[in-house]
Amino acid sequence: MSIYLDHAAATPLDPTVLAAMQPYFSEQFYNPSSPYAPAVAVRRAYDDAKSRIASVIGAQAGEVTMTAGATESINLAFATRTGHVVVTTIEHQAVLAAAQRQDHTLVEVDQHGRVNPESIRSAIRPDTWLVSVGLANSEIGTVQPLGKIAEIIRQERDKRLEEGNDTPLYLHSDASQGVGQLDVNAARLGVDMLTLNAAKIYGPKQVGLLYAARAVQLQPQIVGGGQEQGRRSGTENVAGVIGMAAALEQAESSRKAEAYRLAGLRDRLQARLVTEFPDVVVSGHHKHRLAGHLHISFPHLDAERLVFALEMQDVLVATGSACAANKGTRSHVLNAIGLEPHVADGSLRLSLGKLTDEEAIEAAGTRIIAAVQQEIARIGA
Amino acid sequence: MSIYLDHAAATPLDPTVLAAMQPYFSEQFYNPSSPYAPAVAVRRAYDDAKSRIASVIGAQAGEVTMTAGATESINLAFATRTGHVVVTTIEHQAVLAAAQRQDHTLVEVDQHGRVNPESIRSAIRPDTWLVSVGLANSEIGTVQPLGKIAEIIRQERDKRLEEGNDTPLYLHSDASQGVGQLDVNAARLGVDMLTLNAAKIYGPKQVGLLYAARAVQLQPQIVGGGQEQGRRSGTENVAGVIGMAAALEQAESSRKAEAYRLAGLRDRLQARLVTEFPDVVVSGHHKHRLAGHLHISFPHLDAERLVFALEMQDVLVATGSACAANKGTRSHVLNAIGLEPHVADGSLRLSLGKLTDEEAIEAAGTRIIAAVQQEIARIGA
Repeated sequence: MSIYLDHAAATPLDPTVLAAMQPYFSEQFYNPSSPYAPAVAVRRAYDDAKSRIASVIGAQAGEVTMTAGATESINLAFATRTGHVVVTTIEHQAVLAAAQRQDHTLVEVDQHGRVNPESIRSAIRPDTWLVSVGLANSEIGTVQPLGKIAEIIRQERDKRLEEGNDTPLYLHSDASQGVGQLDVNAARLGVDMLTLNAAKIYGPKQVGLLYAARAVQLQPQIVGGGQEQGRRSGTENVAGVIGMAAALEQAESSRKAEAYRLAGLRDRLQARLVTEFPDVVVSGHHKHRLAGHLHISFPHLDAERLVFALEMQDVLVATGSACAANKGTRSHVLNAIGLEPHVADGSLRLSLGKLTDEEAIEAAGTRIIAAVQQEIARIGA
Repeated sequence: MSIYLDHAAATPLDPTVLAAMQPYFSEQFYNPSSPYAPAVAVRRAYDDAKSRIASVIGAQAGEVTMTAGATESINLAFATRTGHVVVTTIEHQAVLAAAQRQDHTLVEVDQHGRVNPESIRSAIRPDTWLVSVGLANSEIGTVQPLGKIAEIIRQERDKRLEEGNDTPLYLHSDASQGVGQLDVNAARLGVDMLTLNAAKIYGPKQVGLLYAARAVQLQPQIVGGGQEQGRRSGTENVAGVIGMAAALEQAESSRKAEAYRLAGLRDRLQARLVTEFPDVVVSGHHKHRLAGHLHISFPHLDAERLVFALEMQDVLVATGSACAANKGTRSHVLNAIGLEPHVADGSLRLSLGKLTDEEAIEAAGTRIIAAVQQEIARIGA
């Protein structure tokens, strides 16, 4: 049985979530737009799932558009208008790629990966319509001061009102990495748009949502039958949305206890590794960091060799974000926080989750220490 | 146990398809972009499923882009360029809506719902880059002469080459309704782009594909991590694509026998109803029609009342396409074939499939006859 420390890349479908979905694969397979009673019951189940999802994030069902995942949600958010957008340098690839389709400003972060809200304020221009800042970074786990950014957005809006500038200004956040560990209540976060993903919280893959407050006029990217109030056409993913509702409710109900548990395990692993190898670099903010995240760099070592060595010991870890890893390029996040190449190249991302218990974290620690010692011996460092 | 005659709206997930998907929900849940061996195995399974899908449609895996369903595929096809596009008046809502975003010409069909290939030729302008004609209509089941249309496209391309017009001209077909009953080999159909959907062939919902021949330069609608060769970003739907491969292979292997079986059952039902009610109108081409489709109109009757009466007798049928039915408007397809309102309003779409056997079709016939007689008696016609 492998020790899986890559929950930020993918999570297994929770058996109770699968059980909630299963009837909608088979006996309840009807098209929710069909007119007969069994199909109407499917429509009701779908609407009910959306209401439950909305309730978890403190929204109305009408403010939630279901999508095929976070990437689509982000693209939908950015398609609302064209103009000037502001994002940070460490956003997910989808945010950066969507921003690049418009006039955009990249705001830098500090060495812990945190953005200064005042830097956001400085980047906002009279024609800026969107600020997009991820709630928590998928590589280093740093959590952003969204509340303060939301406050700045409100101040800028007030200023526009006074100045007669009627360009709207919205705050979007991709919170895919935060769900289950952080509060994702849209009102409390102060966002106008929010992206969530079921695949990171033991829900089905290819199911996500975009929350957009009533004032935001989304423009559909995908047109057709007019589903999701015309914002995203295509026959509804009934089983998927019901699965996301179950996964989100579970994530929310266990959130505080799970964050506490994961932080304890993570801190123990971090302490062991830091004690054993005093020159390691732990990235991400020491305080404002996802409970299950540990991004740790072993200077001069080759992370890909470490991943392979650990895999031989049945420990599964990532070298960086799955997307960047796939392309063999150095992570834009590690560049942005100023990690030197010889440090960045020796980075592991360890992300804990439901599959991680004390025993696993002890065994993982021991095997990581052995693998790192072996690599150090090999290169004669 | 209900008699389900609405296979064109939705199909149940085949148990063997679900069984093929199941490992990828749980033990094989890894992100296919992760670097360790179990994730690489998932990547291989995904790539293998795509190759199998490509093989069924006579394509290379690199020509196939997986999507969240036919509507997204259609939107992706139409996003290739902007310019002038040609579609028929009876296309699916997604095709019509995507066409409306560009300069477009609607080509009419005859009273059987068939388009004259020469009408397509006449609609092509020097700046036309796309002709999109659905393989089979979802409401009346009419199958289009795609081969002849493809031949015209080739002739128009040759003409452009001679004239030095370098605007490309592509043929796209939404074949969602044809799979499992018609040949969907892209080369034999002569199309440059082809949309397919898993949900109509006992596969998972929210899984589809767009085939695009090598020459077609797709422009991504959804950008980000660069999955699907940059044409459609977002973590891959591993279980869904593996499910689609299994569903498509099953549909293809049983295609001829199933089409023969369904046509026999359909013809028997049609004969009974036509004999009993000589003034019914059967729509769709008498020969070029999907084997499982029967679109039948009872003049002066109210189809919604019939649907309800039949539902009380455990027979589930549609009034028209699920999308149109949802909005309470008269079907654009029935308008296009010139069905008079008092005929169109009494239309049922009966679509047969795997769940339909002889016993079901006999029972359905008897109950439909009884329901129609009751309605005729009620209105005193």
